Amino acid sequence: MLISTASRFGVSCCSLTPSVRLFSRSSNMAKSKFEYVRNFETDDTCLRNCYIVVRLDGRNFHKFAEQHKFAKPNDDRALGLMTRSARSVMEELEDIVVAYGQSDEFSFVFNRSSTWFKRRASKLMTHVASQFSSSYVFYWKEFFENQPLLYPPGFDGRVVLYPSNRNLRDYLSWRQADCHINNLYNTVFWMLVQRKGLSTTQAEDRLKGTLAGDKNEILFTEFGINYNNESAVHKKGTTLIWEKRDETVIKRTKLPNGEEKDMPITRSRRRVEAYHCDLIGEQFWEEHPDILEDDNC
Amino acid sequence: MLISTASRFGVSCCSLTPSVRLFSRSSNMAKSKFEYVRNFETDDTCLRNCYIVVRLDGRNFHKFAEQHKFAKPNDDRALGLMTRSARSVMEELEDIVVAYGQSDEFSFVFNRSSTWFKRRASKLMTHVASQFSSSYVFYWKEFFENQPLLYPPGFDGRVVLYPSNRNLRDYLSWRQADCHINNLYNTVFWMLVQRKGLSTTQAEDRLKGTLAGDKNEILFTEFGINYNNESAVHKKGTTLIWEKRDETVIKRTKLPNGEEKDMPITRSRRRVEAYHCDLIGEQFWEEHPDILEDDNC
Amino acid sequence: MLISTASRFGVSCCSLTPSVRLFSRSSNMAKSKFEYVRNFETDDTCLRNCYIVVRLDGRNFHKFAEQHKFAKPNDDRALGLMTRSARSVMEELEDIVVAYGQSDEFSFVFNRSSTWFKRRASKLMTHVASQFSSSYVFYWKEFFENQPLLYPPGFDGRVVLYPSNRNLRDYLSWRQADCHINNLYNTVFWMLVQRKGLSTTQAEDRLKGTLAGDKNEILFTEFGINYNNESAVHKKGTTLIWEKRDETVIKRTKLPNGEEKDMPITRSRRRVEAYHCDLIGEQFWEEHPDILEDDNC
Amino acid sequence: MLISTASRFGVSCCSLTPSVRLFSRSSNMAKSKFEYVRNFETDDTCLRNCYIVVRLDGRNFHKFAEQHKFAKPNDDRALGLMTRSARSVMEELEDIVVAYGQSDEFSFVFNRSSTWFKRRASKLMTHVASQFSSSYVFYWKEFFENQPLLYPPGFDGRVVLYPSNRNLRDYLSWRQADCHINNLYNTVFWMLVQRKGLSTTQAEDRLKGTLAGDKNEILFTEFGINYNNESAVHKKGTTLIWEKRDETVIKRTKLPNGEEKDMPITRSRRRVEAYHCDLIGEQFWEEHPDILEDDNC
Repeated sequence: MLISTASRFGVSCCSLTPSVRLFSRSSNMAKSKFEYVRNFETDDTCLRNCYIVVRLDGRNFHKFAEQHKFAKPNDDRALGLMTRSARSVMEELEDIVVAYGQSDEFSFVFNRSSTWFKRRASKLMTHVASQFSSSYVFYWKEFFENQPLLYPPGFDGRVVLYPSNRNLRDYLSWRQADCHINNLYNTVFWMLVQRKGLSTTQAEDRLKGTLAGDKNEILFTEFGINYNNESAVHKKGTTLIWEKRDETVIKRTKLPNGEEKDMPITRSRRRVEAYHCDLIGEQFWEEHPDILEDDNC
Repeated sequence: MLISTASRFGVSCCSLTPSVRLFSRSSNMAKSKFEYVRNFETDDTCLRNCYIVVRLDGRNFHKFAEQHKFAKPNDDRALGLMTRSARSVMEELEDIVVAYGQSDEFSFVFNRSSTWFKRRASKLMTHVASQFSSSYVFYWKEFFENQPLLYPPGFDGRVVLYPSNRNLRDYLSWRQADCHINNLYNTVFWMLVQRKGLSTTQAEDRLKGTLAGDKNEILFTEFGINYNNESAVHKKGTTLIWEKRDETVIKRTKLPNGEEKDMPITRSRRRVEAYHCDLIGEQFWEEHPDILEDDNC
Repeated sequence: MLISTASRFGVSCCSLTPSVRLFSRSSNMAKSKFEYVRNFETDDTCLRNCYIVVRLDGRNFHKFAEQHKFAKPNDDRALGLMTRSARSVMEELEDIVVAYGQSDEFSFVFNRSSTWFKRRASKLMTHVASQFSSSYVFYWKEFFENQPLLYPPGFDGRVVLYPSNRNLRDYLSWRQADCHINNLYNTVFWMLVQRKGLSTTQAEDRLKGTLAGDKNEILFTEFGINYNNESAVHKKGTTLIWEKRDETVIKRTKLPNGEEKDMPITRSRRRVEAYHCDLIGEQFWEEHPDILEDDNC
Repeated sequence: MLISTASRFGVSCCSLTPSVRLFSRSSNMAKSKFEYVRNFETDDTCLRNCYIVVRLDGRNFHKFAEQHKFAKPNDDRALGLMTRSARSVMEELEDIVVAYGQSDEFSFVFNRSSTWFKRRASKLMTHVASQFSSSYVFYWKEFFENQPLLYPPGFDGRVVLYPSNRNLRDYLSWRQADCHINNLYNTVFWMLVQRKGLSTTQAEDRLKGTLAGDKNEILFTEFGINYNNESAVHKKGTTLIWEKRDETVIKRTKLPNGEEKDMPITRSRRRVEAYHCDLIGEQFWEEHPDILEDDNC
């Protein structure tokens, strides 16, 4: 029909003709002529029975932190916003059993038996990256109040598979060891700069070659700081897990005798809870035995 | 040192001990003990000399459109925001040579010779998904003004490789044919509902089995609408490409005689330009010969 | 030089010139001009801490069996040759901890911690396929004696990863269940054909819809055969594992007093041993605890 | 039934019981309980519209050549056997459009539009490796006559994809440049050793740092050898392609008048033909325009 009535349709756009001719035969035909391109998609299903870890890292966050005047060595608003965004991801993608974040990175662990998105790696990581990023902008003002966000930030991600509980725990230990090492360094570094007035180059030189013990010593003897008393969120990062909590609400209820009355109703609800504690030892995992599935499955 | 001074450090957090013991020996040792987990990352480098397409799709955008009262069949604010976000992606990731969007999807095409992110698929697609999503929230108010964004939206993505110019053009044609088919359907559908008062089920029934020609006929005879006169952005979607434009600015300049004068300075600048025209025929590609690289390379 | 002496070198082959010109500048240059093509190779490293299974299947072995007059339902020469070839593979690729074969297929299991060939899937599976196939022809006459091999047979292979001991054992159980099902079927089928004189179509019809129990009953009541007394190699297939055996050899040795004497010397040697027993239950695995590595690693 | 008659079936093999119990319920059930392991297989379909190259390399062929007393620098029996084995592969896997071999390696190029084995990389490369290896042993005596093959040799393989004709030709050029460089080196090296009586170390030292021209000069001035007159198979390797040839056979045919007569019948037949000529320049490709498919498809 499109062609038979061509005289009454003025062509308004650049080079419409070929496409008009195409579709006029049959939309389905036109579509299927090109549809072969779908076969170029590859299957990126994650190996079954492995934990799927998606880790996000801020893009150029050094510059982003400068421009948004993040406090040194840790900005609690920024850390709070990271955690808020991670919580938003967990609430959207239920098969995430644990998430761990520090600095400008966050790792999300999907259940080894998860079939979310048919375990397609690309879908899992892009959805996590997308939800995290939109949440970061959405919740910005909850943490930075009147300080404006200057431009939309970017995060990149990757997927890594871990076949055993030991491997997964070692992954989380690796990230937490990284948090510890960086935070101890940064704490001393910024003390030297902010309190002692060293230049950043001088502070770097001072710390070159020092071990953890040396840094603790500097903190204690020169600044009276006991590193162990520093904030747990800075030393240990943030771990998010699902927990069942009983919630009691008061509900107006009709009694058998027709009378209405305020009654307490208790329900068990799954909520995302945040921890700032050690993941390397056994205690956390013994206290939360439901996070990991048995290896022998 | 941490251990030798253990008596003066109170342990404030759950199960700190194991980790303290660990790091006290040497931070490096501790890190390297876990660092083997990096070897579980797999290489997902995209095959060389292929176009890399990243396509994003809105997650649950049917519901999102309802909740944010998007106009039917097309909401120009929403389309504008999609395009604005895509432009933000292109400006951040320079190797994107063309992007095409319609409805709640956008495709980004990386140069076949691009080495951005070492061609690592996961990095490319998560960065695109992230930048697009943070931009969507960031620029929301430019398009929706006082209407609030109710929650952070999500997009998922995928990567597809195309070895030849023909394959890539067929991919874009496939998406544009999809745009045409959906828009023609939706235009008639919502006319039947909004102007004729049909229920959505009645409108569906009316359109069942109709070809493109039939739908054009309904639009013309029942609503006096010539589909070809409909907005190009709705019929053709949005194509973004880089274009060089001469820009002239007036700059105060010192002349040889010491005098200062306002002088026009013309510079060639690369800018992202939007088109709403046919991609299926030859004309667009003949007019923009620089978008695609030669197959024989 | 090649060019400067061009007059005294007659060009003997089709279109030599371009290549001569090319190499005369510098061989290295010539090579590196093309060497970029190496970058098209992709990394197919197998995920760490997973068992790597390579399974081979005979190509068109139905026809191969016909042409080489294999006995029905089982040809012990052919099964022996499969096992001999598999043993040759195990002896060449030491990280194979267990292999299982039946009919015209054989599976090879690499240690979960193996770093053989840097765990590159393509190298592992092609080497297994190659070694097995050359061995099959090489050892043919040991099993078929004067019956000639008519043409070189083909096998195809695949790689599958299993993250846990449970998954790996279930894989082997799956193959052994397959062996059982096929062997029971074939045993009855060929009895009906060979002893009862049914055509193959009649035998198929007779067995349609029968369960394992029905087939056992037919064997017992019609042919006096107790299936459990059938040969274990046919019912259970062949499992190859490494075992340490003490081997004593007599060696002429010089004694402290200068005298020479024949002395028995006992050494522990690793050898490939064959079993034809159940892999589905616990017993085999309890008796050979060294085959599988602990999950928690 | 198997269980109900358990008393009359003696259990002859180690730990039969669990499996008996299992199958007695239903063979299908038993199989499906384990069949989930199939889902661990990953899809390794090769990207469409790319040439698929499978390259095989001899495993430890240095040692193999020593043990089988291969002539230096080139053993024509060994090269002939490689080519015979490659021909066997091509005849089995029809979608191979060109193969190229030199020394102990052979590359097989599948048509870019091939759907052989559904383009599954693992199947393609294992089948090539298997067919080549079984052929190598099978045809050994055609080339080495009474000299026995001491053990079954191994080859490993890999798959590489090439998106354009240029990339594929550069791949073949790369392998041929490698052939040239090695053969020129080896020719001079073995002349120095065999004719001049240098030790291998002395010959190596003599050639260190020499360019192609220097080596040609040594050959010409010290041994009177014009390298260009050396055998093409050594300098250029072996290229196998399919060619149509008219074949005329004499067939006894019944004429219309009832008489029988010997009549020549000409048929066009596809055969694998071998070339030893330059692949780097244009001539070969211009003379065989059917090998490569057009890029613009």
